[in-house]
Amino acid sequence: MDRRHLSLLMFSGDYDKALAAFILANSACEMDMSVTMFFAFWGLTMLRDPGKMSLEDKSLYEKMFSVMTPDGAGQLPLSNMNMAGIGKGMLLKMMKDNEAPALVDFVESARHKGVDFKACRLSMEIMGLRPEELLPEVRVVDAREYLEDAMQADIQLFI
Amino acid sequence: MDRRHLSLLMFSGDYDKALAAFILANSACEMDMSVTMFFAFWGLTMLRDPGKMSLEDKSLYEKMFSVMTPDGAGQLPLSNMNMAGIGKGMLLKMMKDNEAPALVDFVESARHKGVDFKACRLSMEIMGLRPEELLPEVRVVDAREYLEDAMQADIQLFI
Amino acid sequence: MDRRHLSLLMFSGDYDKALAAFILANSACEMDMSVTMFFAFWGLTMLRDPGKMSLEDKSLYEKMFSVMTPDGAGQLPLSNMNMAGIGKGMLLKMMKDNEAPALVDFVESARHKGVDFKACRLSMEIMGLRPEELLPEVRVVDAREYLEDAMQADIQLFI
Repeated sequence: MDRRHLSLLMFSGDYDKALAAFILANSACEMDMSVTMFFAFWGLTMLRDPGKMSLEDKSLYEKMFSVMTPDGAGQLPLSNMNMAGIGKGMLLKMMKDNEAPALVDFVESARHKGVDFKACRLSMEIMGLRPEELLPEVRVVDAREYLEDAMQADIQLFI
Repeated sequence: MDRRHLSLLMFSGDYDKALAAFILANSACEMDMSVTMFFAFWGLTMLRDPGKMSLEDKSLYEKMFSVMTPDGAGQLPLSNMNMAGIGKGMLLKMMKDNEAPALVDFVESARHKGVDFKACRLSMEIMGLRPEELLPEVRVVDAREYLEDAMQADIQLFI
Repeated sequence: MDRRHLSLLMFSGDYDKALAAFILANSACEMDMSVTMFFAFWGLTMLRDPGKMSLEDKSLYEKMFSVMTPDGAGQLPLSNMNMAGIGKGMLLKMMKDNEAPALVDFVESARHKGVDFKACRLSMEIMGLRPEELLPEVRVVDAREYLEDAMQADIQLFI
């Protein structure tokens, strides 16, 4: 491929890490790089389409998991448990004061710019997530497809 | 080298991150890639051979460290402190329901497939770990050797 | 560029992760690699010059943030919330027993070896940090400049 390529493995389900990743993804698109984001484990929670949670055909554990984990990008918690006094509300207030877009805006922007969203098949099976619960453009692939894409990338990060 | 190469720096000692890393390592081997895993800090705890903990010739702090840290891959905790309601037991149950192998199975599989295990010398000195307490095929190397290997890799990740 | 290049994205503000990163940065310099460290979000706290905190011209949230976050590399907390019994004091004691340099020594060494320090402009704006509060050689750049540098690197890590 001729365009420079960025590959992000989104393992974490934290608001601040997701924000950093989507800022990189959007900046890369603006530089005409192609971008793949591969979501696994907790990272999958930010791909959930808030209106589409389903509890049908799920085991008890899968139902508990569906209800207890974040229901889309807006609901993610902060990564930093050390800074006990700094809540997500404070971060959001500081972002608003500086007119920085929120995570959901960066996600929307990345969708419009054509970032390639992939979800890890094994993680989805373990967590009992169904493809129809995710944003519609997400493709479910296995680790092999992640590796094949990442080895073509100019930058690969595990976030 | 002609084969594609994957380099993983295993810093974290969390069960879920280790699971993601070993899934990648095994998938890469199946694609005929060569794989190096370099374990530092908390990552070293998953290389411990459960039957071989030694308290001989250790300082008080090193003894405390030996006893308080996980005794091999099966004992690692979850990374996600935010999802308070989701314990490791629940994740293991969901994995079992979906017939996914456990972490120890992925580690065994990676050993049999010839993944190159390296341990960070400085981390081992600080933590008071002895080479004979680790899985037998682990080689103890310094950061320079990690860097020389990683710069030949097609994919490098810090996990 | 002819020299091999290492690019580290410093997102985390944890003592142990910073230690790992600065050990890599120093080792790379000793191998005659060029090294760029791009600090974003919590990573910015380790670039603060302890004597230069300013509360002037800051909003209430920015002032709270300045006071509650670490005031330079020496003040960072540990990443590992799982190992409740192992405090930072214990890690520092074990490092001292083994005559390992502390994080501030590794940072000083990296400065003298010419590691290129960059700070993320958007993160600084959100957190209300002023360039004059950071170590003097730090340059404030945007995500695009990080990506341009990282795509030239032989090794890129998100820490």
